[in-house]
Amino acid sequence: MSTKKQHKNYNMKNNRYSANRFNNHNTRQSYDRITKNKGKNNQPKQVKKPPVKISFLGGLNEIGKNITVVECEGDIILIDCGMAFPDGDMLGVDLVIPDFSYIEQNQDRVRGIVLTHGHEDHIGGLPFLLSKVNVPLYGTPLTLGLVENKLREHSLINKAKLNVVNAGTSIKLGCMEIKFIHVNHSIPDSVAFAIKTPGGTIVHSGDFKIDCTPISGDMIDLSSFARVGDDGVLALLAESTNAERPGYTPTERMVSESLDNLFKKAEKYRIIIATFASNVNRVQQIINCAEKYGRKVAFSGRSMVNYMDVAKRLGYLSLPENILIDIDMLGKYPPEQVVLVTTGSQGEPMSALSRMAYSDHRKVMVGEGDFIIISANPIPGNEKTVGNVVDELLKRGCKVIYESMYDVHVSGHACQEELKILHRLVKPRFFIPVHGEQKHLRKHAELAEFLGMEKKNIFIGDIGSTVEITEDSLKEVAKVPAGKVFVDGLGVGDVGTIVLRDRKHLGQDGLIIIVASLDVYDGHVISGPDIVSRGFVYVRENEGLLDEVRNLALEILEDCAENNIHEWGIIKNRIKDEISKLISQRTRRTPMILPILQEV
Amino acid sequence: MSTKKQHKNYNMKNNRYSANRFNNHNTRQSYDRITKNKGKNNQPKQVKKPPVKISFLGGLNEIGKNITVVECEGDIILIDCGMAFPDGDMLGVDLVIPDFSYIEQNQDRVRGIVLTHGHEDHIGGLPFLLSKVNVPLYGTPLTLGLVENKLREHSLINKAKLNVVNAGTSIKLGCMEIKFIHVNHSIPDSVAFAIKTPGGTIVHSGDFKIDCTPISGDMIDLSSFARVGDDGVLALLAESTNAERPGYTPTERMVSESLDNLFKKAEKYRIIIATFASNVNRVQQIINCAEKYGRKVAFSGRSMVNYMDVAKRLGYLSLPENILIDIDMLGKYPPEQVVLVTTGSQGEPMSALSRMAYSDHRKVMVGEGDFIIISANPIPGNEKTVGNVVDELLKRGCKVIYESMYDVHVSGHACQEELKILHRLVKPRFFIPVHGEQKHLRKHAELAEFLGMEKKNIFIGDIGSTVEITEDSLKEVAKVPAGKVFVDGLGVGDVGTIVLRDRKHLGQDGLIIIVASLDVYDGHVISGPDIVSRGFVYVRENEGLLDEVRNLALEILEDCAENNIHEWGIIKNRIKDEISKLISQRTRRTPMILPILQEV
Repeated sequence: MSTKKQHKNYNMKNNRYSANRFNNHNTRQSYDRITKNKGKNNQPKQVKKPPVKISFLGGLNEIGKNITVVECEGDIILIDCGMAFPDGDMLGVDLVIPDFSYIEQNQDRVRGIVLTHGHEDHIGGLPFLLSKVNVPLYGTPLTLGLVENKLREHSLINKAKLNVVNAGTSIKLGCMEIKFIHVNHSIPDSVAFAIKTPGGTIVHSGDFKIDCTPISGDMIDLSSFARVGDDGVLALLAESTNAERPGYTPTERMVSESLDNLFKKAEKYRIIIATFASNVNRVQQIINCAEKYGRKVAFSGRSMVNYMDVAKRLGYLSLPENILIDIDMLGKYPPEQVVLVTTGSQGEPMSALSRMAYSDHRKVMVGEGDFIIISANPIPGNEKTVGNVVDELLKRGCKVIYESMYDVHVSGHACQEELKILHRLVKPRFFIPVHGEQKHLRKHAELAEFLGMEKKNIFIGDIGSTVEITEDSLKEVAKVPAGKVFVDGLGVGDVGTIVLRDRKHLGQDGLIIIVASLDVYDGHVISGPDIVSRGFVYVRENEGLLDEVRNLALEILEDCAENNIHEWGIIKNRIKDEISKLISQRTRRTPMILPILQEV
Repeated sequence: MSTKKQHKNYNMKNNRYSANRFNNHNTRQSYDRITKNKGKNNQPKQVKKPPVKISFLGGLNEIGKNITVVECEGDIILIDCGMAFPDGDMLGVDLVIPDFSYIEQNQDRVRGIVLTHGHEDHIGGLPFLLSKVNVPLYGTPLTLGLVENKLREHSLINKAKLNVVNAGTSIKLGCMEIKFIHVNHSIPDSVAFAIKTPGGTIVHSGDFKIDCTPISGDMIDLSSFARVGDDGVLALLAESTNAERPGYTPTERMVSESLDNLFKKAEKYRIIIATFASNVNRVQQIINCAEKYGRKVAFSGRSMVNYMDVAKRLGYLSLPENILIDIDMLGKYPPEQVVLVTTGSQGEPMSALSRMAYSDHRKVMVGEGDFIIISANPIPGNEKTVGNVVDELLKRGCKVIYESMYDVHVSGHACQEELKILHRLVKPRFFIPVHGEQKHLRKHAELAEFLGMEKKNIFIGDIGSTVEITEDSLKEVAKVPAGKVFVDGLGVGDVGTIVLRDRKHLGQDGLIIIVASLDVYDGHVISGPDIVSRGFVYVRENEGLLDEVRNLALEILEDCAENNIHEWGIIKNRIKDEISKLISQRTRRTPMILPILQEV
C-alpha cells in the first residue's frame, strides 16, 4: 500500500464520525485485493467446503474466562478454558467460570483443549471442566507446568491427559490441524493458533504483543503468521485488550532501565517489588538487577512461590548461583543486600503486600527502611485498593514507587499498531474481535474497518454467540448455553441470582427477624413475637423503634387470630408489608423483614 | 532564582530518593531568604504573639468531607463543612459526614463558617451541622445559592444565617479578619482565604487552579496572594488533589475547541453530554456550542436541573434567548437540533445517563441516533461503573466519546507547577498539605521541600490532628474528636462498626437461622428446630444439607435438655459452633448462624 493511500486512510480515521465514514471504496478494494491474492490456494471453487462453527462460551463483553469452541465436520476443539474474577456485585463469590453445558452435551465430539498460555483467565477454569469431562490438553511446556500445579491442587492430576507441544509445531485433532505459533506476552511460552480445518483456516491470536527485544525467548513468530496469511485465512479471532490504545506497547526490556535506576536510588534501603506472579520475565529482570547490585532475592506470596517453582524447574528463570534465599533468611542480611519479590500489585486484601501494608504479615514488617516498587498498573476496578495499600505503606514511612511515576511496567497486550500488523499479515476474510468488553471489541472492529474490511465481514458477539463461517459468508446461528457460573467455597453453581439478590439486600440494609409461636388451635400468640435484627441499626440505641416493631407484629398476629386468618402466607405478608412501612417511615430504610412462625 | 539554580533543583528532584536528598543547603537557604525578606511586617519581635490552633475534622487521608477549625484567642472559625461518599465497604451508607462533637462542645466560641465554594465535599455536611449548632455562614453568592437550596431541602432555611461575601472583600469574625480571595476552579465563585489572626496570617487555598483564560469571571487573584505573602504568612494550608501530577492543568477554555469539533462531527445525531452538575462553566461552553450549531438545550437529572436553576437565577449562565427547552419537548425537535445535558458522568447507578444506558429512563430512549459525550474523567474508584455504562451505550448502537479519546475534560485542581506558584507567592513559614490521601499529602510535602522548606516546618496530619503554631514553632497537640459519621436514610450515626461488620458478613456469606420453641420446664424441643436461610445457597437444590443442619440442631438441643443445660447463652453458642463447623466442612463457607430460642 502506497504512502499516499496510507495517508488517505489516516485522514479517514480522523473523520471517522462523519456519517459516510464506512464507505471509502478505495480502501475496501485494496483490502479485498490483498485477501483475494492468496496464491496457490486460490483455485476455482468446485467442491463446497464444510462450514466452520465457532461458539463463544466466554471472553466477549467481559474480561476473563476466555474459552472458544471450534467445530468442523463433527469434530470439536476448545481454545483455552479460563476463569474470571467476580465483579463487586457478586458478593461472596470466589471466582467465576464458564457454563460448560454445551461441552458436556457434546463431549463425545471434543477432541482436545489447546491452551494459548498459562494465565488464570485462560487456564483457571480447567479443573472445573476436567472434573466433568476429561478432555486431553495440549500446551507449551510452561503452560502445562502451571496447569499441572493447578490440577494437583484439585486432585485431578492422575487422570488428566497433558500433552506438551512446542511452539512452531502442529498437532492433529480430528479433522483439524493446529499450528502453535510463538507470540510475546507477559508470560513466557505463549502461543497463537492457526487451525486448519476442512472449511478453511481459523487464526486465534491468544494474548499477544510484538516485542522485538524480549527478555527471554524469541520475538513473536511473524513469519508464521505471514505464511498462514499467504495461504489464505478464513477468519481471524484476535484479542482486543488494548484496542483502545494507539501506538505500540513498549518492549519489556524498557523496564530493565527503570529498575536499574531505582536500584541505584534505593541505596541503603531494602527493596520490595510487587508484580504479577506469572510475569516470569519481570522477575528475571529483577533478579538480573539484584545480581548487579549485590542483593539476594526472596519470594513472598503463595502464588509467587508457586509460579517461580514451576519456572525454575522448567528452566524459564536464569538464576545466578546462591542468589535466592528463603524469606525466613531476610533478617540475616542488611537491608541493602536484599530484594523481596512479592504478590499484591493489585492491592488484593489477602495478598502479601497488603498484609505488609496493614502490619498483618507474619514475616515481614515494613517501615522507613523500605523502598517499595509496584511493578504493575492497577487493572480497571482495582485503582482504589491499590491506592489504599500505597497510602498505608506511605504512612509507615516507606518510599513507594507506584503507577506511572517511573516506567516500571509495560503491558503484555498489543496496541493498535501491533493489531494492525497482525491483521495485515493474516489477511482474513472475516474478523471476530475477542477478549474484551464491548468498548474494546467495538474499537477493534473499527480498526479492522479502518484497514478496509467490510462491516458485514466483522462479527461482534456476546457469550453464547455462535457463528457459521463458509468461504462466502459469516452468519450468526442459534446461541449455545453460556453464562457465569459462580464458585463460592466448595460450591460450584449453587449461588445464583436469588442468593446474590438476597446477599445484596442483606448487605445494604440488614435484616429484622420476627419470631412467634402460635397456638396450633386458635392461632393466638403463645410466645413472642421476638425481634432480632442484624446489620440494621445499633440495637441498644434504638430500643424504642424495635419495641414499636414488636407491638405492631403482636397486633397483626392477634388481629389475624381474631379474624380466623390462619393461612401463614397471608399472615407473613401482612407482617412484612406493615413492618416495612413502619420502618421506612421512621428511618427511610428497607431492611429484609423475615417473619418466622412456629406452631405449638 | 536563576535558571542555573532551577536546573540544579531539578537534578535534585530526579535524585530525590538518594539518602541525602533533603539536605541541599543552597535550595533551603534560597527559600529562607525569601520568607525572611517579608518587608514591613518583619519587625523585631517584642510582644509574644498568641498561638494559632488548627484542627482538622476532615479532608486529611481522605477525599472529601473537608472541614478545618481555626482558633485564636478563644475565637473559632470553621472553613467549609463537607461530606464524603461512602467507600465500597461502607455497605448501605448514603453519605459520610464529619464528627461534629468538637464543634458542639465549643459552640459558644464559634464565630462563623466560611465557605470556599459550592461543591458537596465542602458544603454537603452543613445541614447536619446546622441542625445541631446554628452557626452563621459566609460565602460568595453562588456558593450560598447552592447552600440555600440544600438547607431548604432539609427545612433549615428559615433559621439559617446566610451572609453573602464577595471575593476581594474581608469580614471580621471575632479576633480574625478573613479575606476572600478569588480563585479558579471547576465551579464559579470559588475563593481561598487569608485569615489574619493576632497570632499571624493563615492562608487556606480551598480548591483551586490557575486559569489565565477562564470561561467566566476573572483569573485567580494572584496579586492578593502576593500581597498577603509580602505581608508575611505564618502557615499555608493548600489542597493536594493533583500534587502527583507534573506541569499545569490546562485551561477550561481548551474544552471549547474539542466540543466544537465533536459538535461538527455529530452532524445528524442527537448529542447527549454528561458532566458534573456543578460545572457551570462546562455547561456554559456546551450552551455556546449549541447556539453556534443551532441546537436547543435540555437538562436531565435532578442535580443538573437544580444547579442550573441556581446558576440561572444568580446570573452565572449566559443564555441566548429560547435556547433552553424542557426535556419533555425533546421529541418535538429533530435529533440534530438538540443537546441533552445530563448527570451520570461517573456511572452512578441511579443517574440519568445510567438509566438511559440500561433503558430505565422515563423520558429518553437512546440508540443508534445518539452521539454521547462523557465530559468528565472517572474519579478513582468509578472506572468500572463508568466503563459499564459506556459498554451498555455502545451495545445500543450509540456513538460514545469517553475518557481521554478527545480533550473533553480538564481538571479543576492545580498541578505541581501551579502549586509551586502558590507556595512562592504566599511564602509561608509553615506548610500543611490538605485535601488528599496520604500519597497526595506526601507528594505535596515533597514539593514544598523541593522549594526549600525545612522538613520540620511541614506537617502531615490526619483527621483529629491539631497543631499549635507560633512564629517559631509548629507543634502537634492533643487530638480532637474526629471520625466518619455514617448517614443511612434518616439515621445519622446509628450505623457503626458493628452494624457494618454484620452487613458485610451477611452480604458475603448470607445467614442461617435456627428457630426452636423449648419447653419452659424441661428444655425439650416443642416445636422446630426450623431452618431458614437467606443468601447462603439455593435452598431447593440443597435440602440435604439443610436437613443435616436441622438434625444437628435438634441433637444439640435435646442433648442440652438431657444434661440440664438451660442457660440459653451456652446452648446458642453450641449451636453456632457446631453448625458453623458442619457448614464449613461441607461448603467451605461461613454464613452467619443465628439461633433463636423461644420458651413455651
